[in-house]
Amino acid sequence: MEESVSKKAIVVLSGGMDSGTLLYHVLSKGYEVKAFSVNYGQRHEKELEYAKKMCVKLNVPHTVFSLPLSEIARGSSLTSDIPVPHGHYEEESMKQTIVPNRNMVLIALAASYAISEKAEKVFYGAHAGDHAIYPDCRPEFAQKLGEALKICDWFSVTLEAPFINLTKGEIARMGKELGADYSLMWTCYEGKETPCGKCGSCVERAEAFSFAGMEDPLLQM
Amino acid sequence: MEESVSKKAIVVLSGGMDSGTLLYHVLSKGYEVKAFSVNYGQRHEKELEYAKKMCVKLNVPHTVFSLPLSEIARGSSLTSDIPVPHGHYEEESMKQTIVPNRNMVLIALAASYAISEKAEKVFYGAHAGDHAIYPDCRPEFAQKLGEALKICDWFSVTLEAPFINLTKGEIARMGKELGADYSLMWTCYEGKETPCGKCGSCVERAEAFSFAGMEDPLLQM
Repeated sequence: MEESVSKKAIVVLSGGMDSGTLLYHVLSKGYEVKAFSVNYGQRHEKELEYAKKMCVKLNVPHTVFSLPLSEIARGSSLTSDIPVPHGHYEEESMKQTIVPNRNMVLIALAASYAISEKAEKVFYGAHAGDHAIYPDCRPEFAQKLGEALKICDWFSVTLEAPFINLTKGEIARMGKELGADYSLMWTCYEGKETPCGKCGSCVERAEAFSFAGMEDPLLQM
Repeated sequence: MEESVSKKAIVVLSGGMDSGTLLYHVLSKGYEVKAFSVNYGQRHEKELEYAKKMCVKLNVPHTVFSLPLSEIARGSSLTSDIPVPHGHYEEESMKQTIVPNRNMVLIALAASYAISEKAEKVFYGAHAGDHAIYPDCRPEFAQKLGEALKICDWFSVTLEAPFINLTKGEIARMGKELGADYSLMWTCYEGKETPCGKCGSCVERAEAFSFAGMEDPLLQM
């Protein structure tokens, strides 16, 4: 028997390659998708332009919500003048890029939107490479927050994090199979004209493309 | 032995009498308190003016964060032109006043602020009278969300909801003992010049003052 529930989903879309591949993945599962991005004052606001372009290409309705998060969540190099650390993504210094409780804020907002849209699911793109540095990308965090979301309203929302145990390389390989367009996904934390190649995010992206046997289209331009 | 931890706390302050009394309560416990309010487009934005006045009186630092929540969380009579229902606070019609997932959004933002301030605790003023209508004021919701907050960052945040099993009458009685100034706490959902006396919020406030054997100073003016 077919499930009788409608399959509506909200995808939290940063504009990077994890959530970008997630968008392809969720669409491939047959969901009616709406994408949800947040401009929280990130240094690499450029990722939002990429998110917009990808949603236009995939014909997915897209909301960009403005949130002055840096007014209250201070001290991150992603939302201030503190320099972005260079090096590997899992190095201790990368903790400087944590925006306090960012993912709970983004997911909570996405769930508000999901309830209004009667969408049963909220997807977010946390992956295994995030676990070392970002507590709010770990399976136990997703599980606990998911339990709260189930009972936050008369309409129950399910949090899905299908990439949470995949490496970025495995995500890239999945994207390759899905025909994902990586020229429309921005990763670099610096957010300048071209990727810096030195921040943890760039380093991890390069490793992922290498693992998947792909060339990075953003480096070909 | 004295606890060696610092006692910093963030109080989510709406400007109403539950969170207002909560502010007195947390101060009485010796915490170093900062109050956190959110302008989410509520019809009764007036409550924020009351929150400000109270923080000035109590000499508590106060942040009012602006959040255009009604752009995504639609359909509530608190954030739209849909009329506020009249009647008792626990009537089915009061569900019209739910703002989808509002409390998780407010608490998540308060926790971002708490982490930045190195405040171990976030207090919110849910009470037993809320349970019938607002799922995000129930003990099981507070418990689940609290478990996620514990692990959202390297700095652990504890969610406290000390009024969650008290009636509004019991809160008023506690406020009376604490010398709380109820002329600085706004309750009415309509947010007009004077309290309407007919919305669920006004009806519940009147019952609470009656229970506590107090006159409502907002009705004496």
